Amino acid sequence: MTDIGRITAAAQRLSGHVRVTPLLNAPLLDRIAGRRVLVKAECLQLTGSFKARGGWSAVSALDPQARARGVIAYSSGNHAQGVALAAARHEAPCVILMPSDAPAVKVANTRSYGAEVVLYDRQTEDRDAIGAKLAEDRGLTLIKPFDNAEVIAGQGTVGLELATQTAEAMAANAPVLVCCGGGGLAAGIALALEAHAPGLTVRTVEPLGFDDMARSLAAGKRLKNPAATGSVCDAILTPSPGELTFPVLQRLAGPGLAVSDDQALQAVALAFAHLRIVLEPGGAVALAAALFAPDLPGTVIAVATGGNVDPALFATTLERFA
Amino acid sequence: MTDIGRITAAAQRLSGHVRVTPLLNAPLLDRIAGRRVLVKAECLQLTGSFKARGGWSAVSALDPQARARGVIAYSSGNHAQGVALAAARHEAPCVILMPSDAPAVKVANTRSYGAEVVLYDRQTEDRDAIGAKLAEDRGLTLIKPFDNAEVIAGQGTVGLELATQTAEAMAANAPVLVCCGGGGLAAGIALALEAHAPGLTVRTVEPLGFDDMARSLAAGKRLKNPAATGSVCDAILTPSPGELTFPVLQRLAGPGLAVSDDQALQAVALAFAHLRIVLEPGGAVALAAALFAPDLPGTVIAVATGGNVDPALFATTLERFA
Repeated sequence: MTDIGRITAAAQRLSGHVRVTPLLNAPLLDRIAGRRVLVKAECLQLTGSFKARGGWSAVSALDPQARARGVIAYSSGNHAQGVALAAARHEAPCVILMPSDAPAVKVANTRSYGAEVVLYDRQTEDRDAIGAKLAEDRGLTLIKPFDNAEVIAGQGTVGLELATQTAEAMAANAPVLVCCGGGGLAAGIALALEAHAPGLTVRTVEPLGFDDMARSLAAGKRLKNPAATGSVCDAILTPSPGELTFPVLQRLAGPGLAVSDDQALQAVALAFAHLRIVLEPGGAVALAAALFAPDLPGTVIAVATGGNVDPALFATTLERFA
Repeated sequence: MTDIGRITAAAQRLSGHVRVTPLLNAPLLDRIAGRRVLVKAECLQLTGSFKARGGWSAVSALDPQARARGVIAYSSGNHAQGVALAAARHEAPCVILMPSDAPAVKVANTRSYGAEVVLYDRQTEDRDAIGAKLAEDRGLTLIKPFDNAEVIAGQGTVGLELATQTAEAMAANAPVLVCCGGGGLAAGIALALEAHAPGLTVRTVEPLGFDDMARSLAAGKRLKNPAATGSVCDAILTPSPGELTFPVLQRLAGPGLAVSDDQALQAVALAFAHLRIVLEPGGAVALAAALFAPDLPGTVIAVATGGNVDPALFATTLERFA
């Protein structure tokens, strides 16, 4: 299980290897939102998303023999890049199992970090089965994207930074909106805030139609999404909440939120114009909720989780919404 | 005159009001450059450029009576926004004199900060004369974009941060490439580095054909550019080096560099893909030199100075170069 001790230990292993990301804001963005919006810019993290934290945490926590045999991960892209970078820096072999419809930029970047990429069909193949077989055949350690205690601990270091940064920004009582796939980041942040910033409460944000976490939190049990694809927010289209992450969020998170694809794209355009950061749609849903959701208080924190977006989609988004 | 004491005093006035910007890097960008590139991301500064520093420094240094009468600035946009934000936060009236061909986003944002915008024709009108008359008529204090000791001191706070950040990054001996219009930022940084990081040397970077600073440094006297417009790097098309800035750079800077418009746009696209920051072309020339200039050492620092770019130009740039 992940607890604050594990998160603190991960922070020590990560120190100097991943980036402390800034908490950004913009007066003109606040005016659009009608509230004060503080944005934790994890798109500025190494590899372009918070996943570099969990990847580093998991790879650095392995015993040397396992690390020398290598690691395998399956991911729509950002987890892949995080694990690939961490493996390369630890001189560990790395296999990445990726859906064949992942954005080309993510596949290319993962290969650039030195990983071997194996593609599978998200609609017809079972990634868990493929991953397990590859792991067994080659003696690789499988690093799951969210149901892994060390990955959750690594993502939780975002929460440690937020505890300090929100205190400096006089925003110690606010919801922390977190883009949510399987819930690893949200769970890690929630555990860190419980220990270090009890006035901050995690609220998960998902794409409409893929709000398995929000529905699961409301129902008190893990529910699945009806579809596997169909949103532009590809980074966070996981089938259901994680086994390890759901109990944490059930205990610590507020009700989940959901935004439309168009709201996510508008948030991408507004982050471009007012924060000068590059977000992918799935990394912008928390900002979209901060900008457009009703019934939020006067100060909100949004974690902008990733910026690995195909240039053509980004250009189209600017043409439509900027 | 600006000296390290004035820069240190400006840093104290700016503390908590402008942002300490991160020093970014990306393994895949280093591979493209063939060297280690550290990017000081001033596009993440409030108002989207380093000019928020100089604006805050100058407005906060005024005596209360002058501040209550108000300030005036002339600028292609970024200085305008910096002064406008600082004036608004100090509750000082603010008039901005802008060329009528400035990007629409800069005009709109400046107005959003509460400033009164007066437009003039860059080709046929003399902004200095118009500015002086407005200042006299209304009792406004003119805040020049670079030939102002307090503005240079404010920009110099970038150098104070770089001294600390480069030491942490084990990059204490390197050229610091700085996008250069009139030279206020380059001069301020050079003075700060002289005092706190003597292993770092400023090198100015300008658009080809508008390299008045490089030619002036080589000639030992202030020279003019042959044309006033004709580069996509609108933010840094100043006619000649500043009176106050040139002697500082003559004493402290290395030879000036120049890059093509296409190199600047390529740097915009690469910063999008690998750093997930938004740069305007004029804010990307230092990064362009870091990526493409021959004869630079294995580690270079590039100051990415601004990110206020029209969405259509950004989209076109991605289509061409990403």
